[in-house]
Amino acid sequence: MIQVLIYFIGTAGSGKTYLTKAFADWLDFKNLENIIVNLDPGAENLPYSPEVDIRDYFTLEDVMLNYGVGPNGAQIISADLISTKIGDIKDEIDYFDVPYVLIDTPGQMELFTLRQSSNLLIDFLGRDRSVMVYLFDPVVAKTPSGFLSLLFMASSSVFKLKLPQIQVLAKSDILEDYEVERIVEWSDDPETLFDDLGREVSNIKNISGELFYMLRDLGLFRTLIPVSAMDSTGMEDVYDGIQEIFYGGEDLERILY
Amino acid sequence: MIQVLIYFIGTAGSGKTYLTKAFADWLDFKNLENIIVNLDPGAENLPYSPEVDIRDYFTLEDVMLNYGVGPNGAQIISADLISTKIGDIKDEIDYFDVPYVLIDTPGQMELFTLRQSSNLLIDFLGRDRSVMVYLFDPVVAKTPSGFLSLLFMASSSVFKLKLPQIQVLAKSDILEDYEVERIVEWSDDPETLFDDLGREVSNIKNISGELFYMLRDLGLFRTLIPVSAMDSTGMEDVYDGIQEIFYGGEDLERILY
Repeated sequence: MIQVLIYFIGTAGSGKTYLTKAFADWLDFKNLENIIVNLDPGAENLPYSPEVDIRDYFTLEDVMLNYGVGPNGAQIISADLISTKIGDIKDEIDYFDVPYVLIDTPGQMELFTLRQSSNLLIDFLGRDRSVMVYLFDPVVAKTPSGFLSLLFMASSSVFKLKLPQIQVLAKSDILEDYEVERIVEWSDDPETLFDDLGREVSNIKNISGELFYMLRDLGLFRTLIPVSAMDSTGMEDVYDGIQEIFYGGEDLERILY
Repeated sequence: MIQVLIYFIGTAGSGKTYLTKAFADWLDFKNLENIIVNLDPGAENLPYSPEVDIRDYFTLEDVMLNYGVGPNGAQIISADLISTKIGDIKDEIDYFDVPYVLIDTPGQMELFTLRQSSNLLIDFLGRDRSVMVYLFDPVVAKTPSGFLSLLFMASSSVFKLKLPQIQVLAKSDILEDYEVERIVEWSDDPETLFDDLGREVSNIKNISGELFYMLRDLGLFRTLIPVSAMDSTGMEDVYDGIQEIFYGGEDLERILY
């Protein structure tokens, strides 16, 4: 059986943890076996019980006490400490032997995407069968400049982690319908984003329409999938996106079993 | 007297705090009056005594206790709480009435660049006389993919904060000379970055030479300034960069006084 690893990645507060749970629930509902791996040593009040949990090895609190540092320092040290537990984490994941492994990453995106330990982890767990779901924070994505800013962040994580990426608009339930439509339109049609950006800001130098056509041509613009952990919006689309990446549209089940 | 506000921005661990201090020391040495504003409520062991300090209003510890949350939650709440202290911070800064205000931002870059409170703060303190110094983490910048990843992060902050940006290679002293030269060459000549990236990674789809020419044409590639807080490398170049932005190369002093 081939196992697929799905990393949920996004900026602090974008809703990674609740999306991870919602996707696990949806897989359960479809009778698709899965486990959740919590990689955030500072996680509090998780809405799920992770089958594998970095907090079994150390917590942010432990690191603060043991290294005599505050939260900021502890987060950086923790990010690097994860790499010392890679073997244990892999053993635990292997023990479960399920087709879907959902990985909830640390709260601050930059601590996961920019530290070398993340690439070590991805390599060790199996890069070729890994994919990332990148969450756009709905509040930030509402403005043209915010959307573009998140698009650059998403591109940054593609180049650093070197994984295929599915882009989702998180917590779409907190937005009005017309807002969701407009954001998805930006992701579909760079020209509308360019027009709206021009109306929002006038003092940015060096903006040209070419930027948008180029980003589109490069495939860095992708159609955003609106998702909601509240009402399970978009879960099937995320699942289909994963199939598409690994099997070019064929259903994973038919190929794996 | 016109006051210039300089925001030091970079990912966690990139060395914002030490660069802020080094630049303040250099300004002191040049008899240019300045103050430091610490905006990180979780700052520990600061190497300088800030004239204005968000910790006088609240600390990360306070927020953890008062809101009953852990470090992750407290950082997000803190980022938003800063906006409630904008008036007080401005009053304090105005009291000092110096030409250079150096602003050391919170540890995690995304907490500053992506939260709306930062734009409120920048507006309130004076957007037109503000500039950001963006730090490239030297360890991440060493590989072509890491460099490109940081370039996207830098571009992300330009679009979200809408401030002119000076890009520096932080802690250049921990790199070998040839590494610094190569990184600066990447920032100068997208073609060399493209070549080196092709050698590093083969599995990234959609990379094309056009991306690099586009980024260059848009001015998102800038010549990186290697800096070091250890030996004050690059401080004059940063200063010159600031003059260039506000006065097109004229010295600030000659215009302001």
